[in-house]
Amino acid sequence: MPEPIFIDATPGTVGYTFGGRDPIATIRPGELVHLRTFDCFGGKVTSVSDLPSKVCQFPYLNPVTGPLWVEGARPGDTLAVHVVDLAPAAEVGWSATFPHFGALTGTPTTAMLHPALEERVWQYAIDVDAGTVGYTARGGDYTADLSLEPMLGTIGVAPAAGEVRLSIVPGPHGGNLDTPLIAAGTTVYLPVGAEGALLAVGDGHARQGDGELCGVAVEVPMDVVLCVEVIPDVVTRLPRLETDTRLISIGIARPLDDAYRSAHADLIAHLCELTGLDLLDAYQLVSQDGMARIGNMVDAQYTITADLDKRLLKGVQAYRGAHERLSLVGGLW
Amino acid sequence: MPEPIFIDATPGTVGYTFGGRDPIATIRPGELVHLRTFDCFGGKVTSVSDLPSKVCQFPYLNPVTGPLWVEGARPGDTLAVHVVDLAPAAEVGWSATFPHFGALTGTPTTAMLHPALEERVWQYAIDVDAGTVGYTARGGDYTADLSLEPMLGTIGVAPAAGEVRLSIVPGPHGGNLDTPLIAAGTTVYLPVGAEGALLAVGDGHARQGDGELCGVAVEVPMDVVLCVEVIPDVVTRLPRLETDTRLISIGIARPLDDAYRSAHADLIAHLCELTGLDLLDAYQLVSQDGMARIGNMVDAQYTITADLDKRLLKGVQAYRGAHERLSLVGGLW
Amino acid sequence: MPEPIFIDATPGTVGYTFGGRDPIATIRPGELVHLRTFDCFGGKVTSVSDLPSKVCQFPYLNPVTGPLWVEGARPGDTLAVHVVDLAPAAEVGWSATFPHFGALTGTPTTAMLHPALEERVWQYAIDVDAGTVGYTARGGDYTADLSLEPMLGTIGVAPAAGEVRLSIVPGPHGGNLDTPLIAAGTTVYLPVGAEGALLAVGDGHARQGDGELCGVAVEVPMDVVLCVEVIPDVVTRLPRLETDTRLISIGIARPLDDAYRSAHADLIAHLCELTGLDLLDAYQLVSQDGMARIGNMVDAQYTITADLDKRLLKGVQAYRGAHERLSLVGGLW
Amino acid sequence: MPEPIFIDATPGTVGYTFGGRDPIATIRPGELVHLRTFDCFGGKVTSVSDLPSKVCQFPYLNPVTGPLWVEGARPGDTLAVHVVDLAPAAEVGWSATFPHFGALTGTPTTAMLHPALEERVWQYAIDVDAGTVGYTARGGDYTADLSLEPMLGTIGVAPAAGEVRLSIVPGPHGGNLDTPLIAAGTTVYLPVGAEGALLAVGDGHARQGDGELCGVAVEVPMDVVLCVEVIPDVVTRLPRLETDTRLISIGIARPLDDAYRSAHADLIAHLCELTGLDLLDAYQLVSQDGMARIGNMVDAQYTITADLDKRLLKGVQAYRGAHERLSLVGGLW
Repeated sequence: MPEPIFIDATPGTVGYTFGGRDPIATIRPGELVHLRTFDCFGGKVTSVSDLPSKVCQFPYLNPVTGPLWVEGARPGDTLAVHVVDLAPAAEVGWSATFPHFGALTGTPTTAMLHPALEERVWQYAIDVDAGTVGYTARGGDYTADLSLEPMLGTIGVAPAAGEVRLSIVPGPHGGNLDTPLIAAGTTVYLPVGAEGALLAVGDGHARQGDGELCGVAVEVPMDVVLCVEVIPDVVTRLPRLETDTRLISIGIARPLDDAYRSAHADLIAHLCELTGLDLLDAYQLVSQDGMARIGNMVDAQYTITADLDKRLLKGVQAYRGAHERLSLVGGLW
Repeated sequence: MPEPIFIDATPGTVGYTFGGRDPIATIRPGELVHLRTFDCFGGKVTSVSDLPSKVCQFPYLNPVTGPLWVEGARPGDTLAVHVVDLAPAAEVGWSATFPHFGALTGTPTTAMLHPALEERVWQYAIDVDAGTVGYTARGGDYTADLSLEPMLGTIGVAPAAGEVRLSIVPGPHGGNLDTPLIAAGTTVYLPVGAEGALLAVGDGHARQGDGELCGVAVEVPMDVVLCVEVIPDVVTRLPRLETDTRLISIGIARPLDDAYRSAHADLIAHLCELTGLDLLDAYQLVSQDGMARIGNMVDAQYTITADLDKRLLKGVQAYRGAHERLSLVGGLW
Repeated sequence: MPEPIFIDATPGTVGYTFGGRDPIATIRPGELVHLRTFDCFGGKVTSVSDLPSKVCQFPYLNPVTGPLWVEGARPGDTLAVHVVDLAPAAEVGWSATFPHFGALTGTPTTAMLHPALEERVWQYAIDVDAGTVGYTARGGDYTADLSLEPMLGTIGVAPAAGEVRLSIVPGPHGGNLDTPLIAAGTTVYLPVGAEGALLAVGDGHARQGDGELCGVAVEVPMDVVLCVEVIPDVVTRLPRLETDTRLISIGIARPLDDAYRSAHADLIAHLCELTGLDLLDAYQLVSQDGMARIGNMVDAQYTITADLDKRLLKGVQAYRGAHERLSLVGGLW
Repeated sequence: MPEPIFIDATPGTVGYTFGGRDPIATIRPGELVHLRTFDCFGGKVTSVSDLPSKVCQFPYLNPVTGPLWVEGARPGDTLAVHVVDLAPAAEVGWSATFPHFGALTGTPTTAMLHPALEERVWQYAIDVDAGTVGYTARGGDYTADLSLEPMLGTIGVAPAAGEVRLSIVPGPHGGNLDTPLIAAGTTVYLPVGAEGALLAVGDGHARQGDGELCGVAVEVPMDVVLCVEVIPDVVTRLPRLETDTRLISIGIARPLDDAYRSAHADLIAHLCELTGLDLLDAYQLVSQDGMARIGNMVDAQYTITADLDKRLLKGVQAYRGAHERLSLVGGLW
């Protein structure tokens, strides 16, 4: 196998939208691609004195590396993107409160009359060997090691029908989904909305809690290794995920109720399609086995993942076995 | 005054996005502009047998006439658009249920396992002279005349930061706001997001109930007369409205709670700015005087208008008197 | 007609729950009843220095006068309560911000990390002859007269199945509905949940804005004149209202979306029952004619009223003509 | 240690409310108590032909065994209830769809115009030795074994201020919380609202998926062994849980957003209290470490649990070590 393409994060390779931008490179299904991503602050937070609202210029947050033209991808297809590897590309990560952003503060939509909470930055030590993310309180001498669990906050393609969305927005095209389930070993299924798909990724997290409570995870630049496959003429309405053990649908909506509903309705439909169970039997099975994890409750749309043990599929493969094939390619890394 | 520009609704003058399209004409502040709009079905529903899901091709619904390049409008300005006149351009209007769309049915986001409700079309007789909209039941011989109250469902400009949105989506750029308060005599304030503003309008309604319950109003092509003004260097975060008697903010969010909150927080901020009341005194005054009207609870974002009696402004004019000036121009029509 | 019963608001005639209390008097259908109610603070706020959180003891807010045993009322019946007259029983009214209560502040459920907004009290001059409610800013010399529009915030009966609810909670039994539509001339329909119905009322407002934004209206003690009728064996699932011109259903839920949905589904069902329209034809008619008004977005459950022009009923009377009969009795006052 | 009290589930020992009922027995802190509970159908579903809406009489669902008078418990105290053991008391469990109940169907509040989904019952084989719950599709020959994970859906005390709530309702008093985290080994902290606390439990589940999607888990009668402690003069605002490894707050609200918010705000406050971290430092730590699990999205209030690794407490014990003490007692079983 040839050396994979490597695309660094530079002003010329990153942008702030899905759609509306020219491809920076072309990739072929089945080949490994190595990208580097900036952190969501574009690398501008370098100390706890760098307040994001000062050093970043809204809405130019959350740069994504790409877009990549995927050979053969056409509207109406599904793009399967396997996350082969995620490695933090820095020894420190950053988190922050950001004025009027987060789940426990008034925001422009959940509007309140309160002044903003204090904007504060936390520096985390990333120890890849130890597998830890080191938290240090700002207001005292409390420290704690949390486990390192790298994930990709943002992955998406150009939206359908000519729409262009900011990279901080999640939607049917993917985008800023912010779910911890997008980790090494996961395959992401996205609806191709434009010729060439125009894939881009960013917003690596060393870890995050469920719901990304304060709006900012442990943000790190990331080395991302991907491998893609085009599944022609298979329509995917909402992003789906697959791991070796779980089949997953993502609901993207506000309030969380609707994210929960749409994730589960999609998972049930998928289960019916794969197993032949009728609608109510699948509803019942998911009701007892299903897990739901809150991705984010802070972005323009919230995300919930609904997932199921793949053993319940009795050996039937989703998306014609794309995850299994891509995992084999990933094994070459 | 010269004869106003007239722009008909034709395949060449309509589109399905805000942003991402070239202007079809240039207009100057202070001049009257006469546009015709298609109905939201693009004129394709012509009998009760024309089911929208069959004759229209999703997402190519809700064509807007435009965009118009507004001379002098730059990002960071506010565009004031005065609705001088709205006249139905047909003698019949159409409404319908649409599969999995509306407030009392499962939808892709408020996902349910129910099959879609029956898709049914209703024809309304529009009698401009009598000022009525004639309802006829499909399932019996019941008829009723409702009052004709023409409004514009969709009005907007190109979004900021290069985003492109479908015309059926409401947002800070305006778009498919679907509030009955956008009627003749109302001035709409929109944030200019791109050079030339790129104004477009569509989706005329002969009338609608609060919330646009079933998702479709009494849809008609409309003759729209507008007049615009650019208010330089005044940032408007969310669309606002003004009539001769009311000052209005529009909240755009899901759930309705957040539309209510953001509309009122904006109205309070505006009231503080215009009267010098402190935040809590303004909160209190709006709490007792404010009216809230649900625009739509069916679109990608819901809308609520919060408004206040302009007498409470004690003679202070919003937006440097733009509404008053534009109303004078409108009087020439 | 005999002099109506008069029941003053005293420690012995008021309480803080619906259900769980013994009746203080018995009333007969068709007779006028005159009650006085305390304001929601139990009369303890007497100057702008009386902060409600200091002078009141939570949850002992919102005293209701009653309960009244209604002769002949049994579970499964509907109680029709006609509001004959509402007259403020004081020359001043009070409003306030209350810590962590209201639509634009973090609350125990919409929990935020912000400290509470300032608690502030406003005194209003009530001028019944002029029909005004006089607002005075606390932070400056701004004053304004708003129109006097007396309404009853709280009216309800004992809940079904032995439940007991605080008087500040709205529910199927009525309670703290906080909609401005409960005014003189309105008939309120409530589901009888216990023998004798056990009717109680309170929380008079000199006026309120839509949604009761800050959580507190212009609170006044009120002279309330009522007249009731029992409609046997007619089940009412949610409170409904009727005026001379409007037929109204009340949705009681969080978020507002569900209050909107349940109000409209009930109104449509009622319209079908009264006119024979089929479900979709009624859905369509309400979609174009219906008005929705936000009662409160601050209580334990939010309320939205959905209503329709009674002319659309083509002369058919709701609840066997109870509103018309009770209006005649009310005319004797 | 003496033999524990045993209380069977009988018509005389069960009821349908929290509050409003006389105690059936007295228990002392520190002693083991063995209760049996009916399933949520009161044992009336005995075959897949027994449709719950026919064999049960709404609202008399979800019987709870109790209430138990806890010696020494007074309003203002916290009751710690340790779940020592949960053992299914039957070899079959039942689940069902129920008309207009569940997350993916229109309900009385999320009201839709759709007819109810089919009411269908599923029988599960409970194999305690194998640790499995056997699912069998109704519409085909598909079967699957899920893991047995017994939990208690309903646990609560009499509400404060004299309120009485149906046992199917969750609230600050506990009640129908429906979270899988209430399992053997968990301590539940409840606010004492009335003298003697008046504890009752019911609604055993052999397992449930996150959110209890269809509204009904795998319902079984349960043998429940408990041990309680009264923590005097410690106010608990919302139910909390503790296991050997996790510290947990429960948010109880609609929509899920508010359940998520209130659970996390409470967890952060608890973390501050136990560790001395300031508010923002605790917010940040929970943002990165916190897990959120959806208990139910089907009941009158939804529940989300927010939890944290107890190692982050650095050895400080919650509630003066109640969990640790009660676990020791539980070890005697």
